[in-house]
Amino acid sequence: MSIRSFHPPVRTLMGPGPSDVHPRILEAMARPTIGHLDPRFIDMMDEMKALLHYAFKARNELTLPVSAPGSAGMETCFVNLVEPGDTVIVCQNGVFGGRMKENVERCGGKTVLVEDEWGMPVDPNKVADALKTHPEAKIVAFVQAETSTGACSDVETITRLAHEHGCLVIVDAVTSLGGSPLEVDEWNVDAIYSGSQKCLSCTPGLSPVSFNQHSIDVIKNRKTKVQSWFLDLSLVMNYWGGGTKRAYHHTAPINALYGLHEALVLLQEEGLENAWQRHRDMHIALKAGLEAMGLRFIVPEAARLPQLNAVAIPDGADDVQVRSALLNRYGLEIGAGLGALAGRIWRIGLMGYSASPKNILLCLSALEAVLAESKASIAAGAAINAAQKVLADRGY
Amino acid sequence: MSIRSFHPPVRTLMGPGPSDVHPRILEAMARPTIGHLDPRFIDMMDEMKALLHYAFKARNELTLPVSAPGSAGMETCFVNLVEPGDTVIVCQNGVFGGRMKENVERCGGKTVLVEDEWGMPVDPNKVADALKTHPEAKIVAFVQAETSTGACSDVETITRLAHEHGCLVIVDAVTSLGGSPLEVDEWNVDAIYSGSQKCLSCTPGLSPVSFNQHSIDVIKNRKTKVQSWFLDLSLVMNYWGGGTKRAYHHTAPINALYGLHEALVLLQEEGLENAWQRHRDMHIALKAGLEAMGLRFIVPEAARLPQLNAVAIPDGADDVQVRSALLNRYGLEIGAGLGALAGRIWRIGLMGYSASPKNILLCLSALEAVLAESKASIAAGAAINAAQKVLADRGY
Repeated sequence: MSIRSFHPPVRTLMGPGPSDVHPRILEAMARPTIGHLDPRFIDMMDEMKALLHYAFKARNELTLPVSAPGSAGMETCFVNLVEPGDTVIVCQNGVFGGRMKENVERCGGKTVLVEDEWGMPVDPNKVADALKTHPEAKIVAFVQAETSTGACSDVETITRLAHEHGCLVIVDAVTSLGGSPLEVDEWNVDAIYSGSQKCLSCTPGLSPVSFNQHSIDVIKNRKTKVQSWFLDLSLVMNYWGGGTKRAYHHTAPINALYGLHEALVLLQEEGLENAWQRHRDMHIALKAGLEAMGLRFIVPEAARLPQLNAVAIPDGADDVQVRSALLNRYGLEIGAGLGALAGRIWRIGLMGYSASPKNILLCLSALEAVLAESKASIAAGAAINAAQKVLADRGY
Repeated sequence: MSIRSFHPPVRTLMGPGPSDVHPRILEAMARPTIGHLDPRFIDMMDEMKALLHYAFKARNELTLPVSAPGSAGMETCFVNLVEPGDTVIVCQNGVFGGRMKENVERCGGKTVLVEDEWGMPVDPNKVADALKTHPEAKIVAFVQAETSTGACSDVETITRLAHEHGCLVIVDAVTSLGGSPLEVDEWNVDAIYSGSQKCLSCTPGLSPVSFNQHSIDVIKNRKTKVQSWFLDLSLVMNYWGGGTKRAYHHTAPINALYGLHEALVLLQEEGLENAWQRHRDMHIALKAGLEAMGLRFIVPEAARLPQLNAVAIPDGADDVQVRSALLNRYGLEIGAGLGALAGRIWRIGLMGYSASPKNILLCLSALEAVLAESKASIAAGAAINAAQKVLADRGY
């Protein structure tokens, strides 16, 4: 056996994540590793917490990056807040609501499912009904930005409804954090998790989470131990909790944390609201181009996420063949449909560093070239101008 | 708020891990991120499996790096193999046996504890007794290389005993993989987990695991779902299982995996048995120096791990003050004692890239300088010569 160093090709990542990683973040990943109890590393952890407070718009003491990808952040929320026998209202309007249901059941909880069509936002009226018919419910869990469809749900309204019935909320913000409006304190979100590889433009592998005092009280009053040792916040807190006395829990992923720190510094330099605006602007430009090409969004306009653009695959186009051609000829990755939408849609990400004029031009021109060659029924020739006009109007 | 990029100091890492990371691994971490379903990434995953087979000396199909630190690798073994009501014999001779017990109990299992003094290896006779008095036991779990004490236990013998009683074994190889002899196939180990940041010299954050067919059969015949969605191998396998059809489970930590791939390429270039020999040689040199200084190992010679050297803190030396002086003046990190050994021992790691003549000379000379200034009772002046002699004899 003789395997050599792996040199990845250079791609443009416009799928559902990972997004393009900013060169400053890649550079940060390669800085010298130091110990997880080194005083300088502890200082970095304090900065990380302040930066996450900024990104989440939350002042929660219990705010930290879980040492694993977004799915583990989701699991952190469920295993700490759900006890056997608890009822959880789970809103499902895509893949990730289904994953939440799996989590509840593996914690011994009971799920009340509130279903909406894939591509639609969560309907707050249905949530209100479920809260009325299930007064025993303890938690409402839902996804703000459904990565599988590109639909954005109304966190503020659903959270208010849940609180009126004495429920906590768990919010999936994997694809929203840093890309579209999110106000954790203002909206009184109890528990929230995200991912490093979407609108923060960092490498995948970390999951920022934040819990308010209400959540902490629930965790402190548990009757049973958290079923995961690795994700047990009462233990993790001893390391991330703050102060100079940090107790070893597990070895932190040092260099991945350097990367997330740099990603958050970049976000702070740009300004959070500016980043939201940039995602909106890029979305409008991309949308103008895609629609000029004749492509159709699957999410109603009012509920569309700027950072995840799901469009129906046009008649005559072969899903796999088109995505392969984009990847092989232009190094461009766009996302396939998941679950019920596999083979029916493409997901074009405009996340973080990927949300740029140059990526939009590449995507539109490459997609048009590939589709024009296939038997797809599209309108060729107008996409770039339509997008360019939006970009110019908005000062890019 | 204005937080700037984090620039870590350059350290020499001779604690219990992370160890010094090879520059080639840091460089690999900074390569361009690609998608977790990119065909080129899938090729890299196949190479990763082959490289892990080499490092573990195992041909198990179910061999992969868990997307989180070693503690999550431990939890992967327990949540997949233990069902509520199962009896697990857990051998405890340090911190990590205690963590195994926590894992068993959080899976609803019953623990039979086989205890040995911290600093001693697991006594196979006690394991044999426990197997006789607990014929209902399903699993024997133990640590090969106890990172908290530096004691090495006999995997081959304990595994044979367990199998004679129809038990599976779960082995913690976090600190042993790549640093001291480990023969997963030859010894018929059923389930094993390790960490990236010890003798593989990679950054922390990944946990290589391997499961043989016997383990897979047990997982396939479970009556209950695995309590962790994130660590459920029946799902993770769909991504890491092999073949061209990889199903999305969670987003893999792409750049961290580049790093582990490079670490394993380095191991393959050196040769696994050569790496074991280097760890032994460096240990003997360091030991000569430490003993010349009058320091005393806490583990009996026959059970000492070369890669983790636990020595009693000499009379008159202040634990924190000495370690701080080493860090602040020489950039040298050595490890404190954990649990029952806190304040009583130092743990000097010689892991992976840290197991080098230059690190030994730095460690001995810096430690001697700092101890000589304190009121510690040591024999100054002989350490470097003693170590140098060993290094020269062994051709370094």
